Amino acid sequence: MQGDTRPIGVFDSGMGGLTVLRALAARLPHERFVYLGDTARLPYGTKSADTVKAYALQATRLLLTENVKLVVIACNTASAVALKALTEALAPLPVIGVIEPGARASVAATRNNAIAVIATEGTVKGGAYARAIAALNGDIRIVQQPCQVFVALAEEGWADQPATFAAAKHYLDPLFAGPSPPDTLVLGCTHFPVLAQSIRAIIGSGVALVDSAETTAAEVAEALAGKGLASNAGDASSTRFFATDSPERFARVGAIFLGRPIDVATVELVDLRAL
Amino acid sequence: MQGDTRPIGVFDSGMGGLTVLRALAARLPHERFVYLGDTARLPYGTKSADTVKAYALQATRLLLTENVKLVVIACNTASAVALKALTEALAPLPVIGVIEPGARASVAATRNNAIAVIATEGTVKGGAYARAIAALNGDIRIVQQPCQVFVALAEEGWADQPATFAAAKHYLDPLFAGPSPPDTLVLGCTHFPVLAQSIRAIIGSGVALVDSAETTAAEVAEALAGKGLASNAGDASSTRFFATDSPERFARVGAIFLGRPIDVATVELVDLRAL
Repeated sequence: MQGDTRPIGVFDSGMGGLTVLRALAARLPHERFVYLGDTARLPYGTKSADTVKAYALQATRLLLTENVKLVVIACNTASAVALKALTEALAPLPVIGVIEPGARASVAATRNNAIAVIATEGTVKGGAYARAIAALNGDIRIVQQPCQVFVALAEEGWADQPATFAAAKHYLDPLFAGPSPPDTLVLGCTHFPVLAQSIRAIIGSGVALVDSAETTAAEVAEALAGKGLASNAGDASSTRFFATDSPERFARVGAIFLGRPIDVATVELVDLRAL
Repeated sequence: MQGDTRPIGVFDSGMGGLTVLRALAARLPHERFVYLGDTARLPYGTKSADTVKAYALQATRLLLTENVKLVVIACNTASAVALKALTEALAPLPVIGVIEPGARASVAATRNNAIAVIATEGTVKGGAYARAIAALNGDIRIVQQPCQVFVALAEEGWADQPATFAAAKHYLDPLFAGPSPPDTLVLGCTHFPVLAQSIRAIIGSGVALVDSAETTAAEVAEALAGKGLASNAGDASSTRFFATDSPERFARVGAIFLGRPIDVATVELVDLRAL
């Protein structure tokens, strides 16, 4: 078969969503991907729901001009506040966010029904993970912590610097103190997988680390198969990238998240403001 | 006298410029101020010169609707890339940035003609401090270091957390290693004064710390007097604030930089995109 050879559109406020693209490409190597990072307006995590919703709508309009067959919101903040609006605006195009898959994975992982969620300020404030987890299992106790400094540490590529350990200790120690600490930690921001080593060093080996990238990729694969949209004629390694600011910075910092070099010639500068 | 009772307009990408407003209000307690933080699009420090220039022009257009008599660009990145464009666009209104005053203060402070500059990526890349210092004294050796993580640490209010010491050590130790280290350090980002204590702990007491806030306030006072624009009828403590995103976050995080609580009722949400 050739299948539906239109690309899958992936968007994020910046480069963090490349951890999701990485999982998607590994899972679906014969699909085509276009990735948009709204780097001129990042971060979304400290911005209000209305602002993020407006930005996300503009971002998906650009993906539509690329004739995508499915949209992945590879940004927790945008998934948290804009999934519903985007699903309605783009219907019947399937739209998949990262919150639901992450919530499902964490519910599957916990043994003691206590889950910790770390995310940006916007995601925590919106409470989307807590709602998604509660909808799956109302008996689960959820503790949340915004970890805004992690975003900057990840963008600097400080996977295991002393500053990263210190920040992880500051944020995570209180979450896992007390008599029955959570046994599962959701990395509720696409930046955070880069810091997994430092996070693991603080929380110990007994806590399950859940990142939404893998589970989101599984959900995308399922949606493609279910809707007859899959293809085996593409090449996930030849992704086209769009950024709303400096392609040089996108390529340099993006490599940290994608786990492979990005050729700056494959990154196109775009302006979303008129969309 | 009453003088020219129009307000002074101060703008920044976010809340960091409030360290400059604080110095202005202390120096000019009988002036009126309006402050605009473009929080929906912060940070400027990782964005390209063209993007920052476009944003800064929109920001000053909002200040013009408030009938300001002078504009202070309380943002190193915007000062570095947009001072010339803003000066031309707003003429004959005086426009004052933070780079020149900071450069002058550092040249006055150094004894061994070696100055270190720490700033955002955008400011360092633009090289404005290096140019401004070299224009004042061509014999001065300048070393520069982007300190992007400092921005997040300052916004989190982590003045003296272990993570802040660790990040300061990472960034600053290499700058002050070697046989004839700089004797002066320019805090080339309005966020950084919040971290002065941690920075001082790393560099020791023998290095002069220069922040542009004080010297910018002195330059504004001089410009007002020189152009007959001064007033003694205002009240600097009743500043009006504008933010392009969440007034709640502006008030909460802004208090860290302003050094006093901000009543959220004094923060008005504005949209610059149509300006």
